[in-house]
Amino acid sequence: MIIVMKPHAAKESVNNICSFLKGRGFDTHLSTGEERTIIGVIGDKSKLADVGFEQMEGVDKITHITESYKLVNKAFHPEPTIIKFDNGVEIGGNKIVVMAGPCAVENQEMITKAAKSVHEAGAEFLRGGAYKPRTSPYSFQGLEEDGLKLMYNAKKEAGMLMVTEVIDKESLEAALNYTDILQIGARNMQNFKLLRAVGKTNKPVLLKRGLSATIDEWLNAAEYIMAEGNENVMLCERGIRTYETTTRNTLDLSAIPVLKNRTHLPVIVDPSHGTGKNIYVPSMAKAAVAAGADGLIIEVHPTPEKAMSDGDQSLNLNEFSDLMVQLKGIAQIIGRSL
Amino acid sequence: MIIVMKPHAAKESVNNICSFLKGRGFDTHLSTGEERTIIGVIGDKSKLADVGFEQMEGVDKITHITESYKLVNKAFHPEPTIIKFDNGVEIGGNKIVVMAGPCAVENQEMITKAAKSVHEAGAEFLRGGAYKPRTSPYSFQGLEEDGLKLMYNAKKEAGMLMVTEVIDKESLEAALNYTDILQIGARNMQNFKLLRAVGKTNKPVLLKRGLSATIDEWLNAAEYIMAEGNENVMLCERGIRTYETTTRNTLDLSAIPVLKNRTHLPVIVDPSHGTGKNIYVPSMAKAAVAAGADGLIIEVHPTPEKAMSDGDQSLNLNEFSDLMVQLKGIAQIIGRSL
Amino acid sequence: MIIVMKPHAAKESVNNICSFLKGRGFDTHLSTGEERTIIGVIGDKSKLADVGFEQMEGVDKITHITESYKLVNKAFHPEPTIIKFDNGVEIGGNKIVVMAGPCAVENQEMITKAAKSVHEAGAEFLRGGAYKPRTSPYSFQGLEEDGLKLMYNAKKEAGMLMVTEVIDKESLEAALNYTDILQIGARNMQNFKLLRAVGKTNKPVLLKRGLSATIDEWLNAAEYIMAEGNENVMLCERGIRTYETTTRNTLDLSAIPVLKNRTHLPVIVDPSHGTGKNIYVPSMAKAAVAAGADGLIIEVHPTPEKAMSDGDQSLNLNEFSDLMVQLKGIAQIIGRSL
Amino acid sequence: MIIVMKPHAAKESVNNICSFLKGRGFDTHLSTGEERTIIGVIGDKSKLADVGFEQMEGVDKITHITESYKLVNKAFHPEPTIIKFDNGVEIGGNKIVVMAGPCAVENQEMITKAAKSVHEAGAEFLRGGAYKPRTSPYSFQGLEEDGLKLMYNAKKEAGMLMVTEVIDKESLEAALNYTDILQIGARNMQNFKLLRAVGKTNKPVLLKRGLSATIDEWLNAAEYIMAEGNENVMLCERGIRTYETTTRNTLDLSAIPVLKNRTHLPVIVDPSHGTGKNIYVPSMAKAAVAAGADGLIIEVHPTPEKAMSDGDQSLNLNEFSDLMVQLKGIAQIIGRSL
Repeated sequence: MIIVMKPHAAKESVNNICSFLKGRGFDTHLSTGEERTIIGVIGDKSKLADVGFEQMEGVDKITHITESYKLVNKAFHPEPTIIKFDNGVEIGGNKIVVMAGPCAVENQEMITKAAKSVHEAGAEFLRGGAYKPRTSPYSFQGLEEDGLKLMYNAKKEAGMLMVTEVIDKESLEAALNYTDILQIGARNMQNFKLLRAVGKTNKPVLLKRGLSATIDEWLNAAEYIMAEGNENVMLCERGIRTYETTTRNTLDLSAIPVLKNRTHLPVIVDPSHGTGKNIYVPSMAKAAVAAGADGLIIEVHPTPEKAMSDGDQSLNLNEFSDLMVQLKGIAQIIGRSL
Repeated sequence: MIIVMKPHAAKESVNNICSFLKGRGFDTHLSTGEERTIIGVIGDKSKLADVGFEQMEGVDKITHITESYKLVNKAFHPEPTIIKFDNGVEIGGNKIVVMAGPCAVENQEMITKAAKSVHEAGAEFLRGGAYKPRTSPYSFQGLEEDGLKLMYNAKKEAGMLMVTEVIDKESLEAALNYTDILQIGARNMQNFKLLRAVGKTNKPVLLKRGLSATIDEWLNAAEYIMAEGNENVMLCERGIRTYETTTRNTLDLSAIPVLKNRTHLPVIVDPSHGTGKNIYVPSMAKAAVAAGADGLIIEVHPTPEKAMSDGDQSLNLNEFSDLMVQLKGIAQIIGRSL
Repeated sequence: MIIVMKPHAAKESVNNICSFLKGRGFDTHLSTGEERTIIGVIGDKSKLADVGFEQMEGVDKITHITESYKLVNKAFHPEPTIIKFDNGVEIGGNKIVVMAGPCAVENQEMITKAAKSVHEAGAEFLRGGAYKPRTSPYSFQGLEEDGLKLMYNAKKEAGMLMVTEVIDKESLEAALNYTDILQIGARNMQNFKLLRAVGKTNKPVLLKRGLSATIDEWLNAAEYIMAEGNENVMLCERGIRTYETTTRNTLDLSAIPVLKNRTHLPVIVDPSHGTGKNIYVPSMAKAAVAAGADGLIIEVHPTPEKAMSDGDQSLNLNEFSDLMVQLKGIAQIIGRSL
Repeated sequence: MIIVMKPHAAKESVNNICSFLKGRGFDTHLSTGEERTIIGVIGDKSKLADVGFEQMEGVDKITHITESYKLVNKAFHPEPTIIKFDNGVEIGGNKIVVMAGPCAVENQEMITKAAKSVHEAGAEFLRGGAYKPRTSPYSFQGLEEDGLKLMYNAKKEAGMLMVTEVIDKESLEAALNYTDILQIGARNMQNFKLLRAVGKTNKPVLLKRGLSATIDEWLNAAEYIMAEGNENVMLCERGIRTYETTTRNTLDLSAIPVLKNRTHLPVIVDPSHGTGKNIYVPSMAKAAVAAGADGLIIEVHPTPEKAMSDGDQSLNLNEFSDLMVQLKGIAQIIGRSL
C-alpha cells in the first residue's frame, strides 16, 4: 500500500502517519520528491482495512500495489533513481555509462592496458571477473582476491571506477575493499542470502537477470536488496535461455521498455554474454542504446584470441573505440549523451 | 557445392561448366557480380567427387557449403540482394524502408486516411491484412478480396506501394492483382506448398519467422521460395515464443546480425507483433534500425482504440510521425538513410 | 454459450430452442447423451443477453464458456468421444490403441513386412509417411501416391488399419482413397485451410501438436476441424520445443491430464518424434500409457540402421514386441486394456 | 581420463598407478566394483600424453571422457549407485522409494499426522520445508530450525526418515542434526558454494534440477558435490520452464532415460512442483515410475485447502493412498517393487 501525500504536505504530517504505522507494527519507506512525499507501507495491509488514511492531515490518496515488489515499483517512486559516485559519475541520469574490460582478470599488465584503453575510449567503469562461477568444478575459477587487487591498481592508474562479481560472503567482504559496484551474476539472481548480504552494504549493486528469470522474478530479486536498505540497485539484461542456438542466449531488448514502465531503477545491457559472439556485439550495443538503456557492460580484451575465458565474445580495443563513436551519435539522437 | 569463377572469367567458360553439370543431371544457379560469377550446384555432390573442377578453364576455387540452404547462403551470393520496385523504391540498399498501416483493413475511409498519413510521415509501403489467419475459427477472418481492393485504392491515392498476407492458393491468386509484396505469415513459415506457390510468382515475398522457428529453419523456408526461381525474398523477424509474458513474443533482434552474417537477403523487423504492446514499439523500432535492419513493418491505426483486431499494439498517427523523425536520425548515424 | 437441458427433456423442447436460435442467426450443435441433451450456441452471445432461456420448456441451466473453443470443450460434451472403425476397432474407449510402422514408406516388401510384424505384436494401425514435409527443399519428400498404395497393400495383407499424413489439397484427395485416419503434422497445426478441408471429410483426423503450440492453440485448431462437421478428431502430443538438447523435443506428458480435463477428444502420444532417439522411446511409451493416453504412435522399422529418414528414432521389431508386453501390463494396472 | 583395470587386478597394481598419478599432481577417484576397479584421473590430461598406461601392470584399457563431468559419469562408474540408510532403506536399488509430506511445516500436530499417514501408505521419507526460498521477500519464509525440530519429532514418531531443503551455511549446519537427506532446491542448483558445502558432509543429497537447467549443467552441479567427496547424490527432476502455461512447469520425464544413460546416480521425480496442480499429480507420478524413476517426492497435506503455501498442488491423504496402490502395480510390471 502506498500513501501519496499532498504537494508540499508538512513534514509533521508525514511523521505522524509514520508513527501511527510503526505503532501498528508496519515498516515504512519514504520517497521524498521535490513536490511530494510518498509513504510505502510494508506489512499485511488487511490489518489496515478499517483505517481512514484519506481523512488524515496531508494525505492526498491511497494506492494499492498488486505487484509483489514495492520498493522497486515505479508507482512508489515515480522519479528515476540516479546512482552517484564520488568522482561525479552518475548512472540512471541523462548520460549513458559504459563498463568495459576483460571477462576474467589475468595479470597486472593486461588489465592495466585494458583499463587505460577503454577509459580513453570513453568507458567510465572497468569490468572484470576475479571470482568466476563456472558450470564445471574443473574450470578456471578466477584469481580471487589477487584479481581484485589487480583490477584496483588498474582502475586507479586509469582514473576510473570498477565493477566486479561477488558470489558469496567471502568474496563480498573482500570486494568491499576494492570495487565501486558489486555485481550479482545470473546464476545467483535468486540466491536470496547473497541478495540480502549486498542489501546490507552501501555499495551500488548491478543485478543480472537470471538465465531464464521472468521480469517479475527479477524485480522481486531487486526488492530483496532494497528491502535491506540499499537503494542503489541497477538491473542488467544479459540474455535469456531460448531454443535458438545461433547465439548463446537471446538478448531480450524489449525488457528495456518493460522495465522503464515498471521500475525507477537504471537498466544496463550486456551484449557480450547476451550473444556470446563478438561479431554480434556492436549491433546489439547500438540497439540497446537506441532502445533506452542507461548503460552497457561490454567485454573488451587487448588480445581476445589469447583470453583465458570467453575470448570469442570479446571485442578488441579498436573495435571498441569504433563502436563508442557510433554509440555517442545514437545517444544524441534520442536526447541523451554518452 | 559452389564454383567460384576467376575475376572476369569468360562467359564461355561459365557456359561450359554449366553444360557439363546439366549433362550429369545437376541444376545450376548463377550469381553474376560485377567482377565474378559464382555457380551454385544443386544435387548430390558425392557424384562429383572425382571431377577436377579446379583444373577447368576460368575456375578460381570450389567451396563446399555445409548448411542445407544454398541459394539464400551468403557464401553463394556475397553481395546483398536489393529488391527493386517500379516506382524506384528499393529494399536491401542503403535506404531503410518503412511499411505501416493497420492490422486489419476495415473500410475505405479508414484505410485511405491511414495510407496518406503514413506515407506523408515517410512510409513507402502500406501494410494491412485482408486475409487473417486466426487462432479461433470464430474470430474475424478479414474482408478477403474486398479488403485487397480497399488497400489497392488507398495505396494508389496515397501514391505508395503495399504489402499484404496470403494464406493459400485462392488468396495468392487474388493478391497478385493488387499487391506489391506477398507476405507469408509466421504460422505458414513451414507451409511448404504455399512457399513453393509464391516461389513460382515474380512478386517479392516477405517471409515472417515462424512462432518458434530456428534461424536455420527460417533460411531453409526461404530456400523453398528461391528454389522455385523467385529471388526477391526478405526475412521478417517478428518475435519468438519464450517463457516471458510481459511481451506477447520476445523480439529477437540478435537475429539481425546473425542473418547479415549468413544470407544476402534483406532483413525486416516487426516491432508491433514482436512486443504486442504499442508502448514498447518505438523503443524496439529504434533498436532494430540501430542493429542494422533494412526495414520495419509497423502497425499504425488512425484510431487504435477502435481497431477491430490488435488495437492495443498499434501506434496512432502522431506517435508514428514522431518515431519516424528519430529513426531518420539513427539511420544517419550508422551511415544509412530512411 | 451452452444450454443444458433437463434429464429426458422432450425432443420437441430441444427443437423449439434450436429453431428460436436459428431464427436469430445462431448456429447450434447438439450433444445427445443417454440422459441429457446439451445445445452449443455459436455466435455473438451478447445479442442473447435479454433472452430468458432458463424459463424455456425443458431447460435446466445455462453455462457460459470462457475458452474460445466450444465443440472440443468437455463442458459441452462431458462424455469421452469414441471413434469407431468398420472392423470394430475403437479409439477413445477403454482399450488403448497402438499405431506403428516406419517413418517413411520405402518399398512394398519393407512396408508389408513391417505391417505384419507390428500387427502380430498388437498394433491395430500401420503408420507411415507418403508425403513428408521436410525442412529443406532438397530432402527426400516421400513417395507420394505410390507410397499410399504400398501402405494400402500392406495394411490389407496384414489385416489392419492405417494412418498417414496429408499436407495439402492434393495429398488429401489422394489419401481419402487409401487411409483410415488422416494425420495433420505439427508444422500444419495452424494451416487453417487444411484443417477446414479435413473437417469437411468424414475420416477421423489425428491432429499433432504444433512445434511450440500452447494447449489452448491446439484445442482451437481442433475446433477448426469440428466446426466443419467432422467430430472424429484425436490430439497427438509429439513434444514441444525447449532449450534442452539431449532430446529432439521435450515430450510434454503433462498435456495428457490437462487435455483429459478440458476436452472429450482422445489423446495419442508419439514418443518417437517426442524424443528423437530410439533408446528413450520405451520409457516414454510406458509413461504415456501410465499417464492416461488413449493410444501411441511409434516408429518401428524392420532394419532401423537402413532407414531413409529418421532411422535412429525407430525401434526394431524385437524391441517393439518386448515393449508391447510391458504396455499391456501397465494398461491393466490402471484399469484399461491394450 | 579413466583407467579401466583388468578383472580381479591386484590391489597393489591399483595402488602403484595411484601413487604414480599423485606424484605427477593428479587427483584420483576409485570406483571398486565386484569384478573390476576403475580409476578416474582428475587434472590436465595433456600432461599425461606421453605416459604408456596401457603397458602398466593390471591395466585393461584407457577411456577418454569428453563430457566435463567425470565422477557422475556412467563411463567411470557403470554400476548404479545405491544409497543406504541406517534403517535398511535404500535409494537406487530395485525398490522405488516415495518421499511425501507437506510443502511447508506448519505445526507439530499437522506434521505428525501427515507423517504417520504417508508412512502407513508406504512412504519411507517425510518431506517438508523448514527453510523456504521465496520469490518475494515478503512471503512466508518457513519456521527455520523450529520447523526442523517439528519434522524430526514427526519422523521419529512415525518411524521413518526425512528430507528437507537447505539454503545456506546456517540452515545446512542446523539441518545436519535432524535430517537424513539434504535437499538443494532448483534456485540453488548453481550456487556452487552451497554445492561444495554439502559435498563436504556425509549426508545424502537430493539435487533438484534448476528452473531451466540443461541436463549437462545439472550433471556438472552434481559433479561439484561429488568432487568434494560426497558420493551419495540423487538427481530430482521437477519440471523446466517453457512457454506452456497450463502447468506451472513442464515436467521433463524424458530426462529419466537420458540420465539413466549418462550417470549412475539415482533419479527422483517431483510431480507436485513439476505440474503445480494436484489434479495432474497422479498421472505424472505413475508416468515417472513407468519411465524408470528410482523415487518420487510428492506433496501431501492433511487438509490441502488450509495449507500456508502451495496448497493447490498437494494431494490429500486419501488421494495419496489410492495413488500408492497403482504405483505398486506399475513397479511390479517393470520388474521393480515399491
